[in-house]
Amino acid sequence: MKLSQYYIQTLRETPSDAEVVSHKLMLRAGMIKKAAAGIYSYLPLGLRVIRKVENIVRKYMNEAGAIETLMPSVVPAELWKESGRWFVYGKELLRFKDRHDRDFCFGPTHEEVITDIVRNDIKSYKQLPVNLYQIQTKFRDEVRPRFGLMRGREFIMKDAYSFDIDNEGAEVSYNKMKEAYCKIFEACGLKYRMVDADSGAIGGSFSHEFMVLADTGEDFVISCDNCNYSANIEKAVVVDKPEENTEALASVEERLTPGQKTVEEVAKFLNLPTKKIVKTMILKVDENVVAVMIRGDHELNLPKVKNYLGGSVIEFADKNDIEMVSDGPMGYSGPIGLKCKVYADNAIKHLKNYVVGGNKKDLHLLNVNHERDFKIEAFGDFRNATPGDTCPECNKGKFQLTKGIEVGHIFKLGTKYSEAMNCVFLDKDGKAKPMIMGCYGIGIGRTAAAAIEQNHDEKGIIWPVQLAPFEVVVVPLNTNDEDVIKTADNIYTRLLNKGVDVCIDDRNERAGVKFNDADLIGYPVRVNVGKKALADGCVEIHIRKSGEQINVLIDDACDKIINVIEGLKQ
Amino acid sequence: MKLSQYYIQTLRETPSDAEVVSHKLMLRAGMIKKAAAGIYSYLPLGLRVIRKVENIVRKYMNEAGAIETLMPSVVPAELWKESGRWFVYGKELLRFKDRHDRDFCFGPTHEEVITDIVRNDIKSYKQLPVNLYQIQTKFRDEVRPRFGLMRGREFIMKDAYSFDIDNEGAEVSYNKMKEAYCKIFEACGLKYRMVDADSGAIGGSFSHEFMVLADTGEDFVISCDNCNYSANIEKAVVVDKPEENTEALASVEERLTPGQKTVEEVAKFLNLPTKKIVKTMILKVDENVVAVMIRGDHELNLPKVKNYLGGSVIEFADKNDIEMVSDGPMGYSGPIGLKCKVYADNAIKHLKNYVVGGNKKDLHLLNVNHERDFKIEAFGDFRNATPGDTCPECNKGKFQLTKGIEVGHIFKLGTKYSEAMNCVFLDKDGKAKPMIMGCYGIGIGRTAAAAIEQNHDEKGIIWPVQLAPFEVVVVPLNTNDEDVIKTADNIYTRLLNKGVDVCIDDRNERAGVKFNDADLIGYPVRVNVGKKALADGCVEIHIRKSGEQINVLIDDACDKIINVIEGLKQ
Repeated sequence: MKLSQYYIQTLRETPSDAEVVSHKLMLRAGMIKKAAAGIYSYLPLGLRVIRKVENIVRKYMNEAGAIETLMPSVVPAELWKESGRWFVYGKELLRFKDRHDRDFCFGPTHEEVITDIVRNDIKSYKQLPVNLYQIQTKFRDEVRPRFGLMRGREFIMKDAYSFDIDNEGAEVSYNKMKEAYCKIFEACGLKYRMVDADSGAIGGSFSHEFMVLADTGEDFVISCDNCNYSANIEKAVVVDKPEENTEALASVEERLTPGQKTVEEVAKFLNLPTKKIVKTMILKVDENVVAVMIRGDHELNLPKVKNYLGGSVIEFADKNDIEMVSDGPMGYSGPIGLKCKVYADNAIKHLKNYVVGGNKKDLHLLNVNHERDFKIEAFGDFRNATPGDTCPECNKGKFQLTKGIEVGHIFKLGTKYSEAMNCVFLDKDGKAKPMIMGCYGIGIGRTAAAAIEQNHDEKGIIWPVQLAPFEVVVVPLNTNDEDVIKTADNIYTRLLNKGVDVCIDDRNERAGVKFNDADLIGYPVRVNVGKKALADGCVEIHIRKSGEQINVLIDDACDKIINVIEGLKQ
Repeated sequence: MKLSQYYIQTLRETPSDAEVVSHKLMLRAGMIKKAAAGIYSYLPLGLRVIRKVENIVRKYMNEAGAIETLMPSVVPAELWKESGRWFVYGKELLRFKDRHDRDFCFGPTHEEVITDIVRNDIKSYKQLPVNLYQIQTKFRDEVRPRFGLMRGREFIMKDAYSFDIDNEGAEVSYNKMKEAYCKIFEACGLKYRMVDADSGAIGGSFSHEFMVLADTGEDFVISCDNCNYSANIEKAVVVDKPEENTEALASVEERLTPGQKTVEEVAKFLNLPTKKIVKTMILKVDENVVAVMIRGDHELNLPKVKNYLGGSVIEFADKNDIEMVSDGPMGYSGPIGLKCKVYADNAIKHLKNYVVGGNKKDLHLLNVNHERDFKIEAFGDFRNATPGDTCPECNKGKFQLTKGIEVGHIFKLGTKYSEAMNCVFLDKDGKAKPMIMGCYGIGIGRTAAAAIEQNHDEKGIIWPVQLAPFEVVVVPLNTNDEDVIKTADNIYTRLLNKGVDVCIDDRNERAGVKFNDADLIGYPVRVNVGKKALADGCVEIHIRKSGEQINVLIDDACDKIINVIEGLKQ
């Protein structure tokens, strides 16, 4: 591509409404343009990146046996009513009526549409399994769209849906996708983690998230410093480690703690470490009130409690319930005398002489000990993991905490949609059974944005070669020197012929402008063709990532460049 | 692709709501599935065809220097209000509100969005010309969507927009697109015509339509049987051919024609050819009433009259106006005594002793002659072309009429949008001027459907090789014969390695089922691998289009197949 014939529109200033670095840099590099809040046009350079992500995704989806299809953006409400989501999805679903006053939505996800297709086409176990995917523009009407492609309203997504005859089959399909996703993010040249994830609102029995690691990420990822274990902070399993505690039991002591509310305040007031302060949280699981004790330096994990106790809705108890079970005010609950079952996190097991609430305003009890002073129904893993916790996988490594950006998510959906929408097949035994489904998403634009969050410096983007809009830019430094022009053109043409994704910056601009643009746009390799080096029969190869500058003879330039590109892909 | 691992869902019965052949066949071949009226999913086979069309379009657009971009589907109303189209577009524009009650539409075309991008990025004549295009899902809320992909509501379109500094530049851009479009439809393997087209509602000073020829087409195309001239029937120029008429003038005669209303009825009643009956149409051009005379065997062409007379709105006059200018009832107007200017089509020039309305109920006048009996203001080309008319280009050939399907349309837009939206550049003289725009569309799904309308038989689709979902299907006839399986597999693999887009029908089905599916889906080449031919070391190559069946030695099969494919592309 000759950039003089292309659409290069870089900005010196960062638009004021861009908050995160990928958003700022994509705007400045002329890759996207805002049309409305959370709605962007992909300008030519940006679209090239998007297409590269799409093609990598497509390649590994096909390799894994998934079959590409394309569903409509405008989805009739009937299908969403059948699944029931029409009534519960809320305002993120962009709804509208057509000219005949029929209800539709702009599809934010396509479980309903694909289930409708498959139930129509597939009747027998012989036709299964099948995994269908699409790469498509979707819409979610976020309250506060921001961060450019990181959290847009209109966005491009790859979504896949697998259909199987039984759970074993569904797990095979799931694992194929897990492998495909690893290959995809690997092939994108990104540092990522696959993490065990809580399944959230969409339902399903197991799920993983794929996180591109970046300091600017909004999600926290726990990973082992010794093995491959990685999990969402809420999902990471905390090991119940035996611990010896030879401390002698002391007598319970009442202590007034006027105005001290938080764990930190109470600890400071009593001159004790926060781990000695134990919180007693009153919860409501469906209609039952229970208490869960958590060490002061730990965080309660509601999904873990819910998984342990069962039930469908878990929430913090309200003032009335608390007063009823504790005979005391909110904020001062303690386990002694509570009129409900008391559970405790494993970390409490080995704790002695700790502080709890006194079920009276401004009162705490010191030197409390379970068994002696009150009964614990059961211990369990009820807290979020913390850095330093022992890895449950290798039992050796320690947890460390990193930040990431979720770019992919895979779920086993089970029969949620197939049952609601009667998507059944005739099994070998002649019986109709609902298909077991899985769904698998990758945010295409988000992956591009996450690549920038992970790879940039103060000058601009540092694209992984695999996602760069062009792998190489050839820059003739003196556009009025015939020799420079000829040599640059020659190198450009030779690279093109060797299949390198190369462009030449033949714009009538100063070298400084071209360098700044190249650094901002983030081509992995820049080839400077200038009078001075040319006098020695050389050109300069500049590597964006390392800043390295290599002088090579003109004749060796192409081989060296290809070499550098291959090296950068490792 | 192994079809046992693929998504093949053919139907024996034609769904009852499909009216045209492409719709029926795409449904039966399992290429599309209806989600709602005019809204379809592209199933895997159908999507492969769509992608082939897209890639051909992309190739020639890029070659012509157009640059790919991607604009949003959800477009803020502000932009459409700026151009004014928000207020005039009508119900075809799917409008809705987001959660914050802001107005948006699902973009049916993107003049506004691209103009907004370009006015933001481009400031100087040095940055022009530029031509940006996208391939995108669009929506038009048609009243009566039907015919499958031929007239859907949600559809995939390639739309391009050029921006130039002056009219000469705009014409260069326009001509580049004209050439690119010819190459595109050529490369699709379609018989097509580029026709001079009336620009219709969207505005602009010149435009061409690209018609895929098909008996089932809804559009009429006039073309010369001697040269390349081709035009929309409404736009085709009718030559004013001098003609000698030695007939002596007879005297005007009044004749009662009770109950005879149409030209045909009057002609039959008077025992005269229809060309002797002349219609006098009373029209209203803005506020002026005029009459236009047309021979009974011709059709009035309102746009031609409008172009000739100027003015902005032309319509048939109402009852009141007719009574006012003719002192007679509607349906019996004639030129004699009319209180308005009378124009006549060129064909009247050489006509003598013809019949006209008598401006009284049931009255006609015979042997009327202009000049002698009434005055004609001017003659002009006011009628639609008909087969047999002389070509205005070569003045030799005759017009013939064919039917076609509009798949592409190019317009020179001029400054309609750039003026309304202040999309200006600084010219060499330092003055701000509006850019001159052009727009260029191709219906991607429509092209695929039109290919079917042009190429099918009673068994199914006959794809041009360039658009076929797979170019070749290898069919092992006996799936329990190891030799058959091995040979089929071997040919399949060899073809794959040679870059042929091939699939193998390894499904556990009878040969008859596979043949029927192959004929319906329309693979251009089928390779039958069966026990019988195998005994002679042969396989059969079956050409879908000609029905030809060729026996070849196994070793020669691949070369022969590639040969056949190349031949089919010519």
